[in-house]
Amino acid sequence: MTGADRQQAHERLESELGVLWRRVRRLSVDLARQVDAGIEVASYGLLGALADGGDLRAGDLAERFGLDKSTVSRQITQLEALGLIQRVPDPMDRRSRLIHVTEDGLVRVRALRAARGRWLGEALRDWPDADIDTLVVLLARLNSSLAPE
Amino acid sequence: MTGADRQQAHERLESELGVLWRRVRRLSVDLARQVDAGIEVASYGLLGALADGGDLRAGDLAERFGLDKSTVSRQITQLEALGLIQRVPDPMDRRSRLIHVTEDGLVRVRALRAARGRWLGEALRDWPDADIDTLVVLLARLNSSLAPE
Repeated sequence: MTGADRQQAHERLESELGVLWRRVRRLSVDLARQVDAGIEVASYGLLGALADGGDLRAGDLAERFGLDKSTVSRQITQLEALGLIQRVPDPMDRRSRLIHVTEDGLVRVRALRAARGRWLGEALRDWPDADIDTLVVLLARLNSSLAPE
Repeated sequence: MTGADRQQAHERLESELGVLWRRVRRLSVDLARQVDAGIEVASYGLLGALADGGDLRAGDLAERFGLDKSTVSRQITQLEALGLIQRVPDPMDRRSRLIHVTEDGLVRVRALRAARGRWLGEALRDWPDADIDTLVVLLARLNSSLAPE
């Protein structure tokens, strides 16, 4: 491959990743509405991050999602009103509080993920096993190449 | 492959897609800060969607991103104050206005995308050409399988 071909391959990869990003975001919006019309999709992102990563401060959540604090603060208020999270004292810093996912919140995260899993299974129905395996291997390698140093 | 193996392959794929999602989001946060510390990353998403898709109403942007209108409205105000978008009359509906990306806004979107392209090129430096091609082919097929009916 010449340098120009290589450059083209990168651009095609970037383009497919962009399409993938939009498809997954679109799907997440639709699934989140099915699971609960009252929650903003971005709030599900926060809920999922808390379910996987454990309790966090609001400021750390904002940092991680690249959102400003007023956005995160509004989403936290919304999730708290729905009983999906609660604020608990931070054992490391008495002046500060952590966001904690409630049992109801975990149930909601699992429901969304199960719906996503069913949808992915449906989309892959006609795929040969070997192609799924190859895609998994190459995505794992891509993730490793993209990992922070 | 048995049904259980197949299920496992789906779960591995879902897991790798999840990691990819978080890596790309993390990177987008970092790159957006490099390009301009004053813009929320989510606002870059809006700016990019407008640059690609043409003028939209604020309500359509909110719908597409699964954000509530108050969030989008705040981001639009931020982007407008920076001169990256402007509100223009909607030729189809005189009571309504469209969000339009300014020339400065397009420059900013291109700068962010160029930075992302350089970063991807760097990450793929050690990849054999054939693997990049295979990944592009499989991602294109995945995107097609994931396309709305």
